[in-house]
Amino acid sequence: MTDVPTPRTIHDIETPAVIIDVDRADANIVRAQADADKHRLKLRPHIKTHKLPHFAKKQVAAGAVGITCQKIGEAEVMAEAGLSDIFLPYNILGRAKLDRLFALHGQVTLSVTADSLDTIAGLSATFTDTGHRLKVLVECDTGMGRCGVQTSTEALALARQIDGASGLSFGGLMTYPAPGLSRETDAWLIDARDLLKSAGLDCETISSGGTPDIWRAGDTKVATEYRPGTYIYLDRYQVAKGVGTNDDCALTVLSTVVSHPTPTRAILDAGSKALSSDTLGLPDFGELVGIPGALVTGLSEEHGNVTLSGEARLAIGQRVRVLPDHACVVSNLFDMVHLVSGETVVDILPVAARGRVT
Amino acid sequence: MTDVPTPRTIHDIETPAVIIDVDRADANIVRAQADADKHRLKLRPHIKTHKLPHFAKKQVAAGAVGITCQKIGEAEVMAEAGLSDIFLPYNILGRAKLDRLFALHGQVTLSVTADSLDTIAGLSATFTDTGHRLKVLVECDTGMGRCGVQTSTEALALARQIDGASGLSFGGLMTYPAPGLSRETDAWLIDARDLLKSAGLDCETISSGGTPDIWRAGDTKVATEYRPGTYIYLDRYQVAKGVGTNDDCALTVLSTVVSHPTPTRAILDAGSKALSSDTLGLPDFGELVGIPGALVTGLSEEHGNVTLSGEARLAIGQRVRVLPDHACVVSNLFDMVHLVSGETVVDILPVAARGRVT
Repeated sequence: MTDVPTPRTIHDIETPAVIIDVDRADANIVRAQADADKHRLKLRPHIKTHKLPHFAKKQVAAGAVGITCQKIGEAEVMAEAGLSDIFLPYNILGRAKLDRLFALHGQVTLSVTADSLDTIAGLSATFTDTGHRLKVLVECDTGMGRCGVQTSTEALALARQIDGASGLSFGGLMTYPAPGLSRETDAWLIDARDLLKSAGLDCETISSGGTPDIWRAGDTKVATEYRPGTYIYLDRYQVAKGVGTNDDCALTVLSTVVSHPTPTRAILDAGSKALSSDTLGLPDFGELVGIPGALVTGLSEEHGNVTLSGEARLAIGQRVRVLPDHACVVSNLFDMVHLVSGETVVDILPVAARGRVT
Repeated sequence: MTDVPTPRTIHDIETPAVIIDVDRADANIVRAQADADKHRLKLRPHIKTHKLPHFAKKQVAAGAVGITCQKIGEAEVMAEAGLSDIFLPYNILGRAKLDRLFALHGQVTLSVTADSLDTIAGLSATFTDTGHRLKVLVECDTGMGRCGVQTSTEALALARQIDGASGLSFGGLMTYPAPGLSRETDAWLIDARDLLKSAGLDCETISSGGTPDIWRAGDTKVATEYRPGTYIYLDRYQVAKGVGTNDDCALTVLSTVVSHPTPTRAILDAGSKALSSDTLGLPDFGELVGIPGALVTGLSEEHGNVTLSGEARLAIGQRVRVLPDHACVVSNLFDMVHLVSGETVVDILPVAARGRVT
């Protein structure tokens, strides 16, 4: 392998590559924090989108109360990098993971979730120190159809179990709401909060989240905390949901046109290994920035098929930037990202929490 | 992070994890090689599926003429590991990549493809040594609708250009056929081969490929070489295409049930970050091995939603093996894979060519 000089501008970067516009990312951090502050809602950004201590620290410096991670491996990377308040909204099960969780609890202010007696049993057998309790929130399925208890009665039963365990403390309720369901989510959580209160169990934290509804988050009558992830980069899906415009999107995939077999078909060197197959329901896989009518309509692993319509033109060798449908999964596919300001490369960062599946 | 002991059996492995059944992988290698030998077809396996020197060497030891890689970065890893004959069916463009290609050409027996004058211009400007020519095949679009020239006349024009360049040699034709189109593919290639022959250009190699049609590969009247990738592991898509049965599939994702919110919904710790969102057109994302009626019907990044029907039952904490729709993209999501024979872990390998996007 030949030595490759460090790129100074976007034109020097080998493709495909992830480009992060730091000015946009910074503006997105500031905008969301200001909105949360205005509504007296704590912000606890989910690091799944960037997987970088660099941006996690910026989010905390801007006013976030801490961060959210989805796997212990991610939390370990963030703790190692100096992040000190981590929420892990996941059912942690099994000896190996409980041991790792225990170690992490010794390093940072940690909280987790549970939605079953099985999870609570594992946690209470592992955490027994009444002087250093692990905070556990009950996960509630308020319409997303993923994890979470189905009724406030179930929430109460689990909260009592947590409250009764010597090394655990009941921290409140957590949900990941289905996009657009904020009113139903609120109603669900209010009902559960009130039932628990009548049983003598206060919810210190009621944590909701999700970028699609971030600008409606302040309407909540019950949540105390919000956990958006994608807001820092945004993507085509979030633009389709009205969260921002293309000009707010910080992550693009720099790519080269490697083939142009027909007048309306061009092929990029970015396929599903760069953009992922995640469309989040959009009809195509991405669009070419600044080239209206150039859409990524097909992907194989190492090729992206672009369909050209209207005035859109491309040439073999041309370098383009693709705005993907889903930014978070793109971060997980690259070992490093290029931070740029305008066309200047300001840093190249390893995606430290990439691929932390356990 | 606590020290984790090396797993001795499948029961010791932290989830999610990729499990490769080496006995099945070995049998798949042997079966495909025997079939190719029987039909006097050269086999040149695509390493995209496993991304491991370990299996690339086994494929060559079994009789493959060499390997296929899709990106220079993959080829660099394989060359470094001692693989000596590499076909890179990709349009290589741009100074940085051409320099890397040049370096690689000094290390191994290398061949590439081109489907445009632009690609050939870059190659002929880089490779000028008449004593050590780079072999270039013309890529043909025989129905897949990706890269490739559209007509045999175009193929002839490019072949002449390659043949006329001092440091290049014309190597023949290459296609990636659309699954099931073998007869049309053959007709296309015969037409092009004959046109080139009449112009004095012989095709040393006519390379086709793709696991879906692997057992029909021997029917070709024109191809000299076949480049299957997925055949070594197989997956649900290939089973749906009739290439093998579930019992031939070597790659599964070991996962734990972390939540069971309703009687028919269970949640795994393997989401799109472990299984990918690639369904290749199948209606769901995977099935649970040995548990009929347990299908992965939804994915978010770190959770897999299993829908249970009929007699299918799961319990929180239960460990299951998921057969994914598409094996190749799973390999790209994990830093390491566990090789097992039965339930015994025989090795843990880093996925050396994972994430080599450039």
